[in-house]
Amino acid sequence: MIFMLKLPKLDSKYVKEESIKFIKEIIEKSKSEKAIIGISGGIDSTVVAYLLKEALGEKNVLGYHLYSETTPKEDTDHARLIANQLNISYTEIAIDNISNEFIDTINQSQSENSKNNKLDNKLDNKLAIGNLKARIRMSILYYFANLNNGLVAGTGNKSELLIGYFTKHGDGACDFELIGDIYKTQLKQLATNWNIPNEIITKPPRAGLWIDQSDEDEIGMTYELLDNILHLIEDKKLDDDSILKEINVSSSEINNVRSKIAINQHKTQIPLTPFMSKKLL
Amino acid sequence: MIFMLKLPKLDSKYVKEESIKFIKEIIEKSKSEKAIIGISGGIDSTVVAYLLKEALGEKNVLGYHLYSETTPKEDTDHARLIANQLNISYTEIAIDNISNEFIDTINQSQSENSKNNKLDNKLDNKLAIGNLKARIRMSILYYFANLNNGLVAGTGNKSELLIGYFTKHGDGACDFELIGDIYKTQLKQLATNWNIPNEIITKPPRAGLWIDQSDEDEIGMTYELLDNILHLIEDKKLDDDSILKEINVSSSEINNVRSKIAINQHKTQIPLTPFMSKKLL
Repeated sequence: MIFMLKLPKLDSKYVKEESIKFIKEIIEKSKSEKAIIGISGGIDSTVVAYLLKEALGEKNVLGYHLYSETTPKEDTDHARLIANQLNISYTEIAIDNISNEFIDTINQSQSENSKNNKLDNKLDNKLAIGNLKARIRMSILYYFANLNNGLVAGTGNKSELLIGYFTKHGDGACDFELIGDIYKTQLKQLATNWNIPNEIITKPPRAGLWIDQSDEDEIGMTYELLDNILHLIEDKKLDDDSILKEINVSSSEINNVRSKIAINQHKTQIPLTPFMSKKLL
Repeated sequence: MIFMLKLPKLDSKYVKEESIKFIKEIIEKSKSEKAIIGISGGIDSTVVAYLLKEALGEKNVLGYHLYSETTPKEDTDHARLIANQLNISYTEIAIDNISNEFIDTINQSQSENSKNNKLDNKLDNKLAIGNLKARIRMSILYYFANLNNGLVAGTGNKSELLIGYFTKHGDGACDFELIGDIYKTQLKQLATNWNIPNEIITKPPRAGLWIDQSDEDEIGMTYELLDNILHLIEDKKLDDDSILKEINVSSSEINNVRSKIAINQHKTQIPLTPFMSKKLL
């Protein structure tokens, strides 16, 4: 048995050329002038910013670091580092006043209406507030897109998109997904070829929606394992028995991934309508 | 020549039955408990709220009227009226403090960064702020969806969805589109059959994103004309010459509609990726 099958190595020159062609075409077709990008300081948005600059030139890429009190200081340093290196427009905005205003407004309405409404607030607020922050970021990026005739570049990679590890209508909301075909593990390899600073490539991935959030803890496995399972499920279309023969993995880990794909599929689909597949007229 | 071809009349009993089946199924499949709905006071959200209540019962529909200083007072009255009539949970929330906090935060960042960034704010702010409000509403609805294990019901009708007359990731963002197969003109007919108060059915449609906004002014024609053109383009797949023979319309009006469809198609599509139709691995 192969202990850990590696994902196919990508040709970084080919990926770069095709990505540049794609960016130029989508900006031109939509008669836009700029690309808008949220720069978190992580590898995903760094790679996207790099490709945008290669395609459009430094004057046409507007980068925004939208940090909050749960953003690791190191990520802000890395966002500055990459914006400086690429020499693109770069703005830092703290979003805490906005998220606090949302929560104050919502809490006030709840206490005013508490007689009429019996809401069961079963889920703890952490998830709701984390998602809110992602949607605030999206709203700010689109505000700047409106003002500057720009398109918002997505930063979702193939691993996240497949298992739905992102906020629907939040960080998942964009006008195009530049790295949506590339697994997280493959991004590291490309980033190395593209002279992305090593500290950005090697630090543990984290969404920063709450303190000490770690992608791999939340997903329940390393990206390396996740990507290998996803590759065998999605690209190779293997069933569980064949996957068990290919890599060193447990049935429950495969189930975990298959269930994430199924549960979160709605996040990357157009909303259903009642007569989608039926004749109405 | 027929002066104005009427859209096919819908069977309101059939539409209601199928919609109820659809709602029950999507709530059950997603293991959700509630439906979350933004009630503007207009006909679209009124019809959606009505169908949700018929499907799920009054205890499982949470309605929110998210008003701002540009919301006509009459719409707030109508939102209350319908929530009362349906006897669903209903909360009013003013969003102005939130939108003001967004704008203060953004303006502050702009003045701090004005030395480094030369942003061309060519478009006037009205559109950007209108879209921002729609995204704030979406963020609040999803916050309540998270807290109550709910799905967010969309309120986009077929006319709006086809020509992209909505804010991407704003009022266009939802978990399912209940009336997405039904033209605005047909909704009026259904609403009459379902005992929706007449004042809601007959008032002029308006998004309320800025003062005196009128849907039909903005679209450039009445919904009746728009729907007839859309029906012939989308359902009948007619070319311009055949449409000109069918209804009393000008070439430029047909062009106007075709161009809206083409320009805004991206709003109802999954974001493109560079290798979507190409082999990467």
